[in-house]
Amino acid sequence: MTTGKINVSVENIFPLIKKFLYNDHEIFLRELISNGTDATLKLKHLTNIGEAKVEYGNPILEVKIDKEGKKLHIIDQGIGMTSEEVEKYINQLAFSGAEEFLEKYKDTAKDSGIIGHFGLGFYSAFMVASKVEIITKSYKDEPAAHWICDGSPEFSLEPADKTTRGTEIILHIAEDSLEFLEEHKIKELLNKYNKFMPIPIKFGTKTNTLPKPEDAPEDYVNETVEIDNIINNPNPAWTKQPADLNEEDYKTFYHELYPMQFEEPLFNIHLNVDYPFNLTGILYFPKLGSDMQIQKDKIQLYQNQVFVTDNVEGIVPEFLMMLRGVVDSPDIPLNVSRSGLQADGAVKKISNYITRKVADKLKTLFTENRADFEAKWNDIKIVLEYGMLSEDKFYEKAGAFVLYPTVNDKYFTLDELKENLKDTQTDKDGKLVILYAGNKEAQHAYIETAEEKGYQVLLLDSPIISHLIQKLEADNQNLTFVRVDSDHIDNLIKKEETTISKLSDEEKESLKTSLETFVPKTYTVQLEALDSQAAPFIITQPEFMRRMKEMSQTGGGGMFGMGNMPEMYNLVVNTNSPLASTILSTEDKTAQESLVKQALDLAKLSQNLLKGEALTAFVKRSFELIK
Amino acid sequence: MTTGKINVSVENIFPLIKKFLYNDHEIFLRELISNGTDATLKLKHLTNIGEAKVEYGNPILEVKIDKEGKKLHIIDQGIGMTSEEVEKYINQLAFSGAEEFLEKYKDTAKDSGIIGHFGLGFYSAFMVASKVEIITKSYKDEPAAHWICDGSPEFSLEPADKTTRGTEIILHIAEDSLEFLEEHKIKELLNKYNKFMPIPIKFGTKTNTLPKPEDAPEDYVNETVEIDNIINNPNPAWTKQPADLNEEDYKTFYHELYPMQFEEPLFNIHLNVDYPFNLTGILYFPKLGSDMQIQKDKIQLYQNQVFVTDNVEGIVPEFLMMLRGVVDSPDIPLNVSRSGLQADGAVKKISNYITRKVADKLKTLFTENRADFEAKWNDIKIVLEYGMLSEDKFYEKAGAFVLYPTVNDKYFTLDELKENLKDTQTDKDGKLVILYAGNKEAQHAYIETAEEKGYQVLLLDSPIISHLIQKLEADNQNLTFVRVDSDHIDNLIKKEETTISKLSDEEKESLKTSLETFVPKTYTVQLEALDSQAAPFIITQPEFMRRMKEMSQTGGGGMFGMGNMPEMYNLVVNTNSPLASTILSTEDKTAQESLVKQALDLAKLSQNLLKGEALTAFVKRSFELIK
Repeated sequence: MTTGKINVSVENIFPLIKKFLYNDHEIFLRELISNGTDATLKLKHLTNIGEAKVEYGNPILEVKIDKEGKKLHIIDQGIGMTSEEVEKYINQLAFSGAEEFLEKYKDTAKDSGIIGHFGLGFYSAFMVASKVEIITKSYKDEPAAHWICDGSPEFSLEPADKTTRGTEIILHIAEDSLEFLEEHKIKELLNKYNKFMPIPIKFGTKTNTLPKPEDAPEDYVNETVEIDNIINNPNPAWTKQPADLNEEDYKTFYHELYPMQFEEPLFNIHLNVDYPFNLTGILYFPKLGSDMQIQKDKIQLYQNQVFVTDNVEGIVPEFLMMLRGVVDSPDIPLNVSRSGLQADGAVKKISNYITRKVADKLKTLFTENRADFEAKWNDIKIVLEYGMLSEDKFYEKAGAFVLYPTVNDKYFTLDELKENLKDTQTDKDGKLVILYAGNKEAQHAYIETAEEKGYQVLLLDSPIISHLIQKLEADNQNLTFVRVDSDHIDNLIKKEETTISKLSDEEKESLKTSLETFVPKTYTVQLEALDSQAAPFIITQPEFMRRMKEMSQTGGGGMFGMGNMPEMYNLVVNTNSPLASTILSTEDKTAQESLVKQALDLAKLSQNLLKGEALTAFVKRSFELIK
Repeated sequence: MTTGKINVSVENIFPLIKKFLYNDHEIFLRELISNGTDATLKLKHLTNIGEAKVEYGNPILEVKIDKEGKKLHIIDQGIGMTSEEVEKYINQLAFSGAEEFLEKYKDTAKDSGIIGHFGLGFYSAFMVASKVEIITKSYKDEPAAHWICDGSPEFSLEPADKTTRGTEIILHIAEDSLEFLEEHKIKELLNKYNKFMPIPIKFGTKTNTLPKPEDAPEDYVNETVEIDNIINNPNPAWTKQPADLNEEDYKTFYHELYPMQFEEPLFNIHLNVDYPFNLTGILYFPKLGSDMQIQKDKIQLYQNQVFVTDNVEGIVPEFLMMLRGVVDSPDIPLNVSRSGLQADGAVKKISNYITRKVADKLKTLFTENRADFEAKWNDIKIVLEYGMLSEDKFYEKAGAFVLYPTVNDKYFTLDELKENLKDTQTDKDGKLVILYAGNKEAQHAYIETAEEKGYQVLLLDSPIISHLIQKLEADNQNLTFVRVDSDHIDNLIKKEETTISKLSDEEKESLKTSLETFVPKTYTVQLEALDSQAAPFIITQPEFMRRMKEMSQTGGGGMFGMGNMPEMYNLVVNTNSPLASTILSTEDKTAQESLVKQALDLAKLSQNLLKGEALTAFVKRSFELIK
């Protein structure tokens, strides 16, 4: 048996880096800027604790393109390195201590906000550079150092004449990466990863026009000065205390996050917790309407102000992924898969915290300004209803603020609904019947009939409403929801009184026979002795079948295969209506047929079922009638 | 100045591997199976050229879980390694030669189909294993070798008593990766990455029931045998020649690719080119209908039968991403970003080849069986129309097979359309006017009127049709498209003859005044002297405004801000209709108003504009009329 050491030759570590990271070459800039930020925050920390006896000042980072020289410079004003430190951190530690390095930085991070969550660090420069130089001067009183490496393991290190504190990294951009010498590309990357880094980042300059002096002559030309162009906001709103921010600040930050978004958010939720995990952030409710196809990649995940990803699956509860905003947490493990994330206890806690916080905020908003909450209801309901269906914890809290609007824009909580409707809408079996419509326009005739009876009709038009209704019925005894067109109103809320039929049983039989001769088989004829003033013909669609169908169609629930069932309709004929008598007494079959068909067409119109050729014929016939 | 070598200590290469690849731990299995496949194909190659004097036989790969021992075995029957080769390839070469290794394999790949496109190789095992063993016996007459390494750089190497040719890799799965001991997890990975690898892969066994012998007694119990469970298809359809496949084979392969897909594809396109690049594959047209929101991640990219990704953005032209199928090409660079891909010359050529091939196939299908092509038109049109708009090359070829169906299911090419309609539908200014409807049901009345005039009406109902129409008009002089409800038919195709007005100018003036008193301002009243049998009132929506609006709404084109303009309608009143005379002669203003309103309601019905309260009132009124 032999033993030995696996021999890794460093010549080829660079191709390996490129290979491993092929999809993400661009992250080199994030890494180098993170290093520069670390170096600066470290200096701040050391001056704060008195270890570094220098002036901290107002250090910035600078990114500079030298297109002609094919170079990219990243310059910080941080602690810098001595020759010994270059030797130690760059030449020795680099790859050998990725984890140790990370561990070390993590500890200091808690005290001073140092980032250090990306272990790839400095060497990612070789993903885009054929040669890298470091010119660095430590805060300690030692000469500057100049390190050069062309991607082979040979480096050179010599003293340099840099006199200002900090580190300059010079990347000699490789031929296959020349895009990183384009201003727009660097701007794009800075904007993507570094928009909210804690140290100001300068990229180029801009021209400022100075104000005209008061005593300027007529032909005075305003003077201009070049000033640093700072591309980031080192103090984004989410890093501040909620008490220090007003509504306007939150809105301003929203537009900073989404410059292309012109609409104002409805409201925001400031997340801020440091035990048992560290999480800050701001979530915004945008106007959503009933559209569930909203893009979900809108919430951005940061770690200590460094952008990580806009895929927050597993971290933010599913139903809140329709929101926008920022979540910043150093406690989310990045080196696990998505499914690993979902199983991670800490992440589960974060997700639960966000759910609870959102529910609490909604309750506060509802309590403090109900009118405003009601006005926003239509734009937020889809999130809340989806939340009730997908998160039990949210469902428990939702009773306190989830609303059920009527077609006349009155808003009830479930408890208020029960209280307000129990006298009028409890049926003879003691069930409270909640009437609702899915569309105010399309079900207008049915709504009108219900309102004439003194009933309230809710307007429930979310795509997932049938699932929610099903859940509410299961959890609330003696509560039932029926859509207003699912039967004649007197059958939907059955009371003790019965209307006496004007027709004898024999006449009813005869009427039914006539109707069934002329009405297509797709409609089930249902005779009802109703108020003589009620509509003579109405078409209804039974609640159960329709709801199961809808549930199947919107995914999950319902009964298997129901989604493809044909629509089923009943034709309710009011035997007490004058029209019923007229039909019965019309002896001429042709006249009787045209009477039934016209009445059926009218009933179909109210249910949006008269279309195409049948509609054209109806319109033509009706023009004939009035010409 | 000092120079030196960057010192990479190998102790920590393993944490680095984990770090780099955090999102993709699972690829270790793909890597190890690729290595096993390489080793097997290499043996085939060597026996073929006579260098290895052994029997190639029917080698398989095996994956085995030892849950109790927390081990995963990957066993091949390939060339194997001698101790010296283990020393060379595992202990030395491993990380030092990623690129060289790749280069080397690439050459042989062309001759013998060896994979070798993944350089990560063997060491990815350490992403999931705390210890790895290799037991290997070369095809050469030398003793087997047993290599063990626990993730530190120390390894041991000793002779082993393995007598069968090939390599067994034993992974001692680490505590944080125990999911890779789950049968369903391994099955999922094999299914994802290795479903079409060229060597049979065994994973477990399954029970086969033997047939009953002919002379078996009544109470005979069928014998069962355990047989290898082969999880892959080593010869997937796309690797075969089109001439060797029939329709059924293509369908079978479709269902192999998409086991959850029950619908049959409409047709397929076999891609097969080896110069100037190597590409094979099969694309399928699924039934798409008018839905553009189809999932785009359906085409799978392979390299030499190894699954790479289901994101083919940049490789397959955008408009074809709605298709399904497989593209296999060793010539697509994987180590560049998406934007790099799009700029890559070779990839651009591949994309153009696919476009051309699809266009050619469509032309053949159209020519060989036009009836069948027409029957499938509605399911493929969205892809073709989108292709015409997005790829000029496709647009040029599309004239030969793109169809324009009428509402009566007749199908024309653009040339046929011109030829067939020129006699009837050329207007007095020499323009050929193509009438179309967007919805057969909703525009029924207008279609009927046009057909009564002997005109053809197309049914163009794709969401992007207004963009296509705009392009066709720009490219074809004297051709204009108008939707059938955009004006009265006599104005849409203006002929020389004019209908004489029954009303004097004075009467017309008086009629117009009456109409404008009772018709809401949202409608522009337009008096026309039409055939007295034509509809008395119709509502039209001018083409230009509507089209610009639609183009704005479906993204791009149109005029800025038009998407939000309100709908604009005209009310065309036929002054020669009996109703017009009746309105004119009705002196009682109340009677005149109710006449105008009823007529307007009827016109609104035909244009789907009578809704909600107005519809309910109309229905009530109409019931009154017939009771």
